[in-house]
Amino acid sequence: MREPEIDLRKSPGAARKRRAGGRSARAARRQAGNLATAPAVITRRIPVYALLDEDALQRLEDHADWILREIGIEFRGDDEALRLFKDAGASVSGARVRFDTGLARALCATAPKSFRMEGRDPASSLTLGGEHVVFMPAYGPPFVTDLERGRRYATIEDFRNFVKLTYASPWLHHSGGTVCEPVDLPVNKRHLDMVYAHLRYSTKPFMGSVTAPERAEDSIAMARLVFGEGHLEQHCVIQGNINVNSPLVYDQVMSGALKAYARANQSVVVSPFILGGAMGPVTQPALLAQAHAEAMAGIALSQLVRRGAPVVYGNFLTTMNLKTGAPTFGTPEANLSTFAIAQLCRRLGLPLRCGGQLTASKVADGQAMQESATSMMAGILAGSNMVFHAAGWLEGGLTMGYEKFVMDLDHCGMMLRMLGGLAIDAEGLAAEAYREAGPGEAFLGTAHTLAHFETANYLSDLADTDSYEQWVENGRLDLERRAHRRWQQMLDQYEAPPLEPAIDEALKDFMARKNAAMPDQWH
Amino acid sequence: MREPEIDLRKSPGAARKRRAGGRSARAARRQAGNLATAPAVITRRIPVYALLDEDALQRLEDHADWILREIGIEFRGDDEALRLFKDAGASVSGARVRFDTGLARALCATAPKSFRMEGRDPASSLTLGGEHVVFMPAYGPPFVTDLERGRRYATIEDFRNFVKLTYASPWLHHSGGTVCEPVDLPVNKRHLDMVYAHLRYSTKPFMGSVTAPERAEDSIAMARLVFGEGHLEQHCVIQGNINVNSPLVYDQVMSGALKAYARANQSVVVSPFILGGAMGPVTQPALLAQAHAEAMAGIALSQLVRRGAPVVYGNFLTTMNLKTGAPTFGTPEANLSTFAIAQLCRRLGLPLRCGGQLTASKVADGQAMQESATSMMAGILAGSNMVFHAAGWLEGGLTMGYEKFVMDLDHCGMMLRMLGGLAIDAEGLAAEAYREAGPGEAFLGTAHTLAHFETANYLSDLADTDSYEQWVENGRLDLERRAHRRWQQMLDQYEAPPLEPAIDEALKDFMARKNAAMPDQWH
Repeated sequence: MREPEIDLRKSPGAARKRRAGGRSARAARRQAGNLATAPAVITRRIPVYALLDEDALQRLEDHADWILREIGIEFRGDDEALRLFKDAGASVSGARVRFDTGLARALCATAPKSFRMEGRDPASSLTLGGEHVVFMPAYGPPFVTDLERGRRYATIEDFRNFVKLTYASPWLHHSGGTVCEPVDLPVNKRHLDMVYAHLRYSTKPFMGSVTAPERAEDSIAMARLVFGEGHLEQHCVIQGNINVNSPLVYDQVMSGALKAYARANQSVVVSPFILGGAMGPVTQPALLAQAHAEAMAGIALSQLVRRGAPVVYGNFLTTMNLKTGAPTFGTPEANLSTFAIAQLCRRLGLPLRCGGQLTASKVADGQAMQESATSMMAGILAGSNMVFHAAGWLEGGLTMGYEKFVMDLDHCGMMLRMLGGLAIDAEGLAAEAYREAGPGEAFLGTAHTLAHFETANYLSDLADTDSYEQWVENGRLDLERRAHRRWQQMLDQYEAPPLEPAIDEALKDFMARKNAAMPDQWH
Repeated sequence: MREPEIDLRKSPGAARKRRAGGRSARAARRQAGNLATAPAVITRRIPVYALLDEDALQRLEDHADWILREIGIEFRGDDEALRLFKDAGASVSGARVRFDTGLARALCATAPKSFRMEGRDPASSLTLGGEHVVFMPAYGPPFVTDLERGRRYATIEDFRNFVKLTYASPWLHHSGGTVCEPVDLPVNKRHLDMVYAHLRYSTKPFMGSVTAPERAEDSIAMARLVFGEGHLEQHCVIQGNINVNSPLVYDQVMSGALKAYARANQSVVVSPFILGGAMGPVTQPALLAQAHAEAMAGIALSQLVRRGAPVVYGNFLTTMNLKTGAPTFGTPEANLSTFAIAQLCRRLGLPLRCGGQLTASKVADGQAMQESATSMMAGILAGSNMVFHAAGWLEGGLTMGYEKFVMDLDHCGMMLRMLGGLAIDAEGLAAEAYREAGPGEAFLGTAHTLAHFETANYLSDLADTDSYEQWVENGRLDLERRAHRRWQQMLDQYEAPPLEPAIDEALKDFMARKNAAMPDQWH
């Protein structure tokens, strides 16, 4: 099936216009920030940025091969994985798996170059890979913060709020996974409520649990209740995010979850998680080769479990303050590595996850937005197909920020407009406007300006561009305080998408049975 | 003369190390933010980002030719300019100058591809063009702001402060021009104090006045007193920033200043200043062609005044909020145009000015840094050789911010590190580190990490990467409040570079004579 395309060169405003119920409806939505759901598919119309030349890329690939051949990767506590690798020709010694030159790459070759991921509403379905770009919220924070209540442990209510905010935004295409960690629920049961929230409060594609193989199976089982028993055999509707236990290790939790998703023909994102200096050497070339080796090994396993299972080549590679050991984000070294890893991934021909609005800042201040904007732009120009942490991330991923979330959304909108590129055509060149307004004359009143003024530019939801005097009169609000109003408006105006009552009942039954069958575990 | 090069791949830390008086001296400087003066020359080691293909670029060039041929450019009140253009083969009718296809481009061809600009101290000299990148502070704000005193009109004391802060930073290479507008001095005299401040409190190359041709002459005369009477004939030591009176007009003030600098064989930066929708159509393709036409016309005039006079192809092209008429910055459309204009300039083979840390925000908040970081990164990847407004800019250029200034400095340092690129060599690939620390082991203690940990990463001056608890204990300071301390430390520790007393006297004499010869004018 060919998906509908939105031509972003005509600006998001134009896309909204076609769906809109006239000017007042549009204005009302903009006011609330509660814009219509996202364009299903974003097609990249700008080139990728190629940092490294052929020779440098070849050296990185050779070094990845050397790591796989001489050092190897450990798959700990997973005999099935070791057997699969051995049968495929790898050398296995204890938990250590070593690959001859080219073997891991060859095993990755059966993964699709791009694949379709279905949402509960077909309008929310998307494509991962190729020229497509997908944004999703932050993943994993145990804390949340907002201007009124401050920083605190996240709850399932916060989790639902971020699923709702994600659903309400046109700039996020994917509902994410653990948008925050609902620590008010038992560790062994919270995955049920998380998956339910994604399925009930959103229609966008989402991620299930990976914290234990049986929780991955529960997540997939709940998706089957919604999409139909046999549907998952041929269609991808859920993903698992597999973080490698870098350096060079997959433990049985991660490989077990990976196998569960792959067996069900569902997608995994295989993400080496490397802070340079701790989980790898301190120099970027080594980290790039290591990340490439780790990703290939995990993707190879997915293909040994099920040839053709959809995967995303993931990456989370950043720097540390080497005097304190603290992770750092949006740094020049991390951005350079983002550019380079994208090139390595493209040479494998797989969908790429990299980039994100990343920061070490505790608050949504200048540091947060400088680091976030820089790391996001690096990922976009690098050619990322899937951006984790596109909204809300603070404090190195420990905290999900309500204000940061909507601040990031606005930047996501800008990045999507940038991906639409520039069409150099007669309409844009505006010869008539120059005939109408000559040297020294204002162009505001020309017919060309009047015809284009509503759609020419992305209109920020949050940026203040008023005069100083007007800004003072409006209360001297900085971006964070303007954002505080915005997410509250978005939640106030949120409307849940319909869900067939029988399906809702089936989900609740499943959860009740699972909950009853296990005692609560709190760690 | 071949200039000393700093290999940024070894990180700014490495560069500092070679100059430093050991660890404690280094630590003291870092503490104060008062780092040693900048590396004289930054060599770009990363590719430029090419947004448009040959066909699109050709269409933009054709349209620029069409504008020059059919619409023309006006040079108002400048008979000499009109005569020079007529003699060169252009068609002149009233103030309107029209160029046959290719004429303006051909006239630009005598300008140098790159040129050396001398600082008062040879270590501060720099190259504009080619693979070199030069940062300078904001230009033009009539207001200043800081956290304690708030927003107020700028004074000559503020002006001196920003010259000193620029001198003290290793990340700014150029002292700038009107770093803020000293409105406490008469309009017709303040250029003397501004030029004196650049010459007295800094050694970095700088800009003189362009607000009247005679003030340009005064600026050049003062430079001659410092560098020697005949020296300027062969060496560039001062620049004039010529903003085009867009759309498609040069008034006699701008063309007069342009001619004064070119006649003295000093450099001009020719910068079309276009807000799309007001000084040109609202669509980026038209604005790009117009900016290209305007820049070529001004550069052509400089070459008609003096063949080979050094020029910079400038650009200041941004968007507006078309509902309110307010200028907007760091927008996706402006960033796309930054990428495209750089390609047009490279095809002319001239040094390029574009990019900058631009924002409409009134305060140094998340909006300020998101917009600034994005527009700066666009300029850097586009291939800018000279970045105006690299530090301090707020409120669309109306305000120079003390805190914003040092926040931007830190991002300048990051961008310079990024320009150093990635060297994929054996040392960086770190094979030994993998032999020392295998799968699952920490790399912090390896010999390779210990050998590289001090120079591997750019170390931010201002980013907080502490734990949340530590950050709370330190007073919960956001970036703006940390920056407030930093600029004060930098000013406290500033030491003026020596200036020969006889030269200082000559400058003061010159100023006293000029001041005595004119009554004060206040508007």
